[in-house]
Amino acid sequence: MVMRWAEGFIAVDWGTSNRRAWRLSPGGEVAGEMEDDQGILAVAEGGFPAAVAQIRARLGDLPMLMAGMIGSNRGWIEAPYVRCPAGPGDLAERLCWIEGERAAIVPGVAFDSGGVADVMRGEEVQLLGAHAKGWIGADSTLCHPGTHNKWVRLEGGRIAAFRTVMTGELFNLLKEHSILADLLAGPVEPGAAFEAGVRHGLERDDLTAEIFSVRARVLLGKAPAGEAGAYLSGLLIGADLKVGLRLAGEGEIVAMGRPDLTRLFAAALAVAGRPAREVDGDAAFLAGAWHLVELVR
Amino acid sequence: MVMRWAEGFIAVDWGTSNRRAWRLSPGGEVAGEMEDDQGILAVAEGGFPAAVAQIRARLGDLPMLMAGMIGSNRGWIEAPYVRCPAGPGDLAERLCWIEGERAAIVPGVAFDSGGVADVMRGEEVQLLGAHAKGWIGADSTLCHPGTHNKWVRLEGGRIAAFRTVMTGELFNLLKEHSILADLLAGPVEPGAAFEAGVRHGLERDDLTAEIFSVRARVLLGKAPAGEAGAYLSGLLIGADLKVGLRLAGEGEIVAMGRPDLTRLFAAALAVAGRPAREVDGDAAFLAGAWHLVELVR
Repeated sequence: MVMRWAEGFIAVDWGTSNRRAWRLSPGGEVAGEMEDDQGILAVAEGGFPAAVAQIRARLGDLPMLMAGMIGSNRGWIEAPYVRCPAGPGDLAERLCWIEGERAAIVPGVAFDSGGVADVMRGEEVQLLGAHAKGWIGADSTLCHPGTHNKWVRLEGGRIAAFRTVMTGELFNLLKEHSILADLLAGPVEPGAAFEAGVRHGLERDDLTAEIFSVRARVLLGKAPAGEAGAYLSGLLIGADLKVGLRLAGEGEIVAMGRPDLTRLFAAALAVAGRPAREVDGDAAFLAGAWHLVELVR
Repeated sequence: MVMRWAEGFIAVDWGTSNRRAWRLSPGGEVAGEMEDDQGILAVAEGGFPAAVAQIRARLGDLPMLMAGMIGSNRGWIEAPYVRCPAGPGDLAERLCWIEGERAAIVPGVAFDSGGVADVMRGEEVQLLGAHAKGWIGADSTLCHPGTHNKWVRLEGGRIAAFRTVMTGELFNLLKEHSILADLLAGPVEPGAAFEAGVRHGLERDDLTAEIFSVRARVLLGKAPAGEAGAYLSGLLIGADLKVGLRLAGEGEIVAMGRPDLTRLFAAALAVAGRPAREVDGDAAFLAGAWHLVELVR
C-alpha cells in the first residue's frame, strides 16, 4: 500500500474569525504559509469547497488536515467530539475524512463529569503536538490563553480534564462595547497595575463589581486612566487563574499559545507564586498536525 | 420673596442612552411625560440647549430639574460629585444652577473609602425620594438594578455607602456581541433555570468559566438552549448578590427600579433566603425630584 499523503500536506487551523494554513513538505518542514480573515463565519452556506480551493491555490494542490471550528456545527462538516480522556490515538481514529481521503477534520474534545461540561476545538492538536515533541510532560497542567482560555490536565499523554474560562472574549467585549471602552484603548503590559489586578482577581470574588470600580477610580482621580487596561487584564487573568489552578497538580504550569498572551499569563502565574514556562502555539500546532498524520499513514 | 418654581417644573432623568421627563404641576401631580432616545451620547457638542428646548416644546416652558449622566463630564455641565454620607440637604445645597436658575442639575454621589471607589448619577434622586415618602426606612439596604446595579446602605436617611456591580451591562454585552448571543435571544423569567444560576453565582467563584459552560452544556445536550438566558441571568445576579449582601444589614432588602428588573432581583433574593420588597423607580424619582425642589424653594 502506498503511504498516505506521502507528498506532504497542508495543516489548517480554521477558527471562527480567522484561518491559518501551513504547507508541510514530505519531510515535515514548513514550505509555505498563509493567514486571512476567512474564518467559518465569513464562509456562506455551501461555500467551504471553494474556501478550501482558495487555500490550495495559494499553498499547493495537496491533502489537508483541518482543526478548529471548521469541525463545528457552523463549519464544513461536523466532526463529533471525542470524550476525555483523549490522546493522539483517539483523535487519529476519529478523524473525519472527506473528499475521498484528500482531507480530514480533527474532532474536538468534550469533558463532561461532575456537573461540569466543556468543549474544545483546535487546542487539542497543539496539546498533543507539544507532548509528542517532549515540550510538555505526559502528566502536566497547561493553560492555553486566547479568546477562551483552556486549562488542561494531561495524564499519561492524554487530555484528562479541562475547563474553559472566557477571559479573552470578556476583555474584548469590555474594550470594544462597554462603558470602559475609552479607558481600554492602550496596550496591556505586565507591570505594577497588571500585577495589582492579578492579586485582586486571585484573592477576591467581587469581579463584576471590581470591573466597574476600574472606571470609578479614574473618575475620582484614584488611578491613572492609562493603567486601566493593564489592571483590568490582570483582574480577569487573576480570576481565571483562581479557577484554573484548582485543576493543576504540583509544579510548573505551561502557558501555550500566542506569545503576546502566554507572556501575560506567565507574569500572572509569577504573582500567584507558580513556576511557568511558555510554549509557542504555532510550533505546537504543526507538531500535532504532523503527529496525527503519521498515526494514520 | 416669590417662591422659586411656583409654576411647577419638569423633572428629567437623563441617562447615557435615553431620557425621560415628567411635567409636575404646582401641586406635584404628573401633568405630562415623554421618553426618547436622546441620551447624552446622542447629543452633539454644544447641542444641550437645543435638546433642552425640545423637552420644553413638548411639556411646557417650565423650569427643569435634571439628574443622571447629564451632569457627567460627557453631559451638559459637569456637576461635581457629593461625597458620602450624602442626604437630601447635601444634594440640594450642591445643585448646579444654570440658565439663571431656570434649570438645575443634581450632583452625583461618590464613595471613596477603604480602597473602594464608586460613583452614581441619577439613582440618588430615587433613593432620597423613596425615603422622603416613607417607602424605605432611614437605615436600610437597597439594590437598584439597571445597566449598573447599585447596592446602597442608607443610614440616618443619607447615602452612607454603596457599590456598583456591572450585572446588566455584562448580560447585554454577552447577549449582543458574544459567542453566547444566539442562545440568549429569548426572554428571561424567574424559574428553575434562573434559580439554579443564582445558586451557582452565590456559592461558587468561577463566574468567567461558568459563563462559557452555559454554551458547552447546550452543545453537549446537557441543558436546553431555551433556558440559557434565564440561567445566565441568574448566574450574574447571584454573583451580584454575593457582593451586595456584604453591604447589607439584617432584615429586608429593598429592590428599587424598573419592575421587570426588581422582579428578578426579588426572586434571586428569595433564593438567598433574604426577604425583599420592590419599590417602583419612576415613582421614587418623581418623589425625589419634588423633595429636592421643596428644599430650595
